[in-house]
Amino acid sequence: MLKYDEELFLRLVEEEGLAYREQIENFVDEICKKGYSNIFLIGAGGTIAMMYPYEYILKSNSTIEVQAEIAAEFMVMNNKRFSKDSVCIFTSVSGTTEETVAAAKLCKERGATTIALVAEPNTPLTQVVDYCITTGSETHSFDTFFMLLYMLVFRFMYNNNEFPQYEQFTNEVALLPKAILNSVKAFDAKAEEFASKHKDTDYHMMVGSGNLWGNTYSYAMCILEEMQWIHAKSIHAAEFFHGTLELVVEDTSVILLKGEDETRPLMDRVERFAEKITKQLTVIDTKDFEMEGISEEFRNHFSVSINWALLSRISVHLERERNHPLTLRRYYRQMAY
Amino acid sequence: MLKYDEELFLRLVEEEGLAYREQIENFVDEICKKGYSNIFLIGAGGTIAMMYPYEYILKSNSTIEVQAEIAAEFMVMNNKRFSKDSVCIFTSVSGTTEETVAAAKLCKERGATTIALVAEPNTPLTQVVDYCITTGSETHSFDTFFMLLYMLVFRFMYNNNEFPQYEQFTNEVALLPKAILNSVKAFDAKAEEFASKHKDTDYHMMVGSGNLWGNTYSYAMCILEEMQWIHAKSIHAAEFFHGTLELVVEDTSVILLKGEDETRPLMDRVERFAEKITKQLTVIDTKDFEMEGISEEFRNHFSVSINWALLSRISVHLERERNHPLTLRRYYRQMAY
Repeated sequence: MLKYDEELFLRLVEEEGLAYREQIENFVDEICKKGYSNIFLIGAGGTIAMMYPYEYILKSNSTIEVQAEIAAEFMVMNNKRFSKDSVCIFTSVSGTTEETVAAAKLCKERGATTIALVAEPNTPLTQVVDYCITTGSETHSFDTFFMLLYMLVFRFMYNNNEFPQYEQFTNEVALLPKAILNSVKAFDAKAEEFASKHKDTDYHMMVGSGNLWGNTYSYAMCILEEMQWIHAKSIHAAEFFHGTLELVVEDTSVILLKGEDETRPLMDRVERFAEKITKQLTVIDTKDFEMEGISEEFRNHFSVSINWALLSRISVHLERERNHPLTLRRYYRQMAY
Repeated sequence: MLKYDEELFLRLVEEEGLAYREQIENFVDEICKKGYSNIFLIGAGGTIAMMYPYEYILKSNSTIEVQAEIAAEFMVMNNKRFSKDSVCIFTSVSGTTEETVAAAKLCKERGATTIALVAEPNTPLTQVVDYCITTGSETHSFDTFFMLLYMLVFRFMYNNNEFPQYEQFTNEVALLPKAILNSVKAFDAKAEEFASKHKDTDYHMMVGSGNLWGNTYSYAMCILEEMQWIHAKSIHAAEFFHGTLELVVEDTSVILLKGEDETRPLMDRVERFAEKITKQLTVIDTKDFEMEGISEEFRNHFSVSINWALLSRISVHLERERNHPLTLRRYYRQMAY
């Protein structure tokens, strides 16, 4: 596959990622023993979007109070549910994202418990937090972060007596990297076909819901807009019929990200509408992928990882078809603002 | 002013809206006396967007736990923080919005306390909830709802011993309709100028933050997209630099909705960037309006109402300039889906 080293992927995500299981369990158990009032998931751009699935999963599976907050807003808004008893979780590939580092410092100063997942070692973020997993590689860092977040979040639920299946779940997390790899291989030709067909499309509507809303928001903003300079509107399936639908015409590119959680019927409804109106409908559905060894009851959670890995294949093919490097920026780190 | 009856506005919003003060206080006091665990603000499209300001206000001013949830997603997600001890607040102009009515029924069945603000009397929503304010008129209903929500939400905070200024605040709510009217009059020529200049603009970027994020999201989706069929991307100021900025070029229409809460510096940063790049920058800033009689400490809250009323002037001028009725729909209530 284009720009994809299978062995490297398995080494980084499977071997090295899973190696952190014990460390995660130890510190989560320590935090739970001490007690906490709520969990704040804090990030910016791609890393707040990465938290939305876990906010959704916690809300719909646990009585633990959770809030996902954008770092720069969290810094100024004086959130009154936040206190020294809060647990604050951050991720950052570079470990230098300005707002994330500032928010982590603020949380630490106020006495809250801070946890970070970072790719690069010895960075501002790794140094400021109480507990840090440093994965050591920027390659496939989002795939690894997702996997670590499953272990982390579900361990909190397990300790809250809400997830007795934790042992089985974590054993299945270990099967996820191979499931991702097989899904990616099965999807790659379709990703290439999409990129070729849409290389000149200047606007996409992306629709998602439930635990896939974060990926929907992120792909539109951080990939299509930031990395390909293509206009993209992300819209929640539950909101689609309250406005954005009116823009759909025969040649509108509509991309549906279908997962397997409770909100799937909301996506089905958008699909039934869109297939009547546009000839440019793309459905990316995790149900089409096998996820070998993963039990039916957990597929809904793992579809976050699978979906993100599939979308990432579209990115590299768009990059080639459009001759537009994913790293090209007009403004970010090119000028001060 | 075009399509604006000043006397009718004052009668509906000022006289009739304020008449509900005692009723609101009575039922909020009753609920607080009984006790509750948290507040859910539930809506769809324009009415969930209308809740976001109050979610932000509660988060940043109160320890009361609050969640704003999209009705259709709330129906299926099995939110574990929701219980019979929750207070659920809804608004609906028609009282018939399908998902909102279904969500209110669900909340009622599960034993939660339900409150609704509705324009039309004797509708499914007015009949299902425990406490209902029926304003009786669809005209200026959003202006009225905003005003009633101030009284409602701040009464909960007052009863939670977090807002001793309630009496003064509510006296100032009474001054809000005139402040809105004066702001609208002062802004109308600018609204007309914007509509004339942008009658053929096919894409707008709208940026907001804090308690104005809801208006930003709503205006892009429910007015520009739904009612004018113009592509619009709403983006939070705290997220703007994580992707969407890359699309801004010399002729990109960027609309900034500036308010007066703690997040204003985030908007200032976007403004400094945008004014360097695009010649099509529009700043709508509540600071430019007097709000006679309203004290400095409360302007930040009331800017939600002021901002929405200003935006509404743009809508009627766009309608005329573009010869595109705000009521025209391709699909909504034109076909089944």
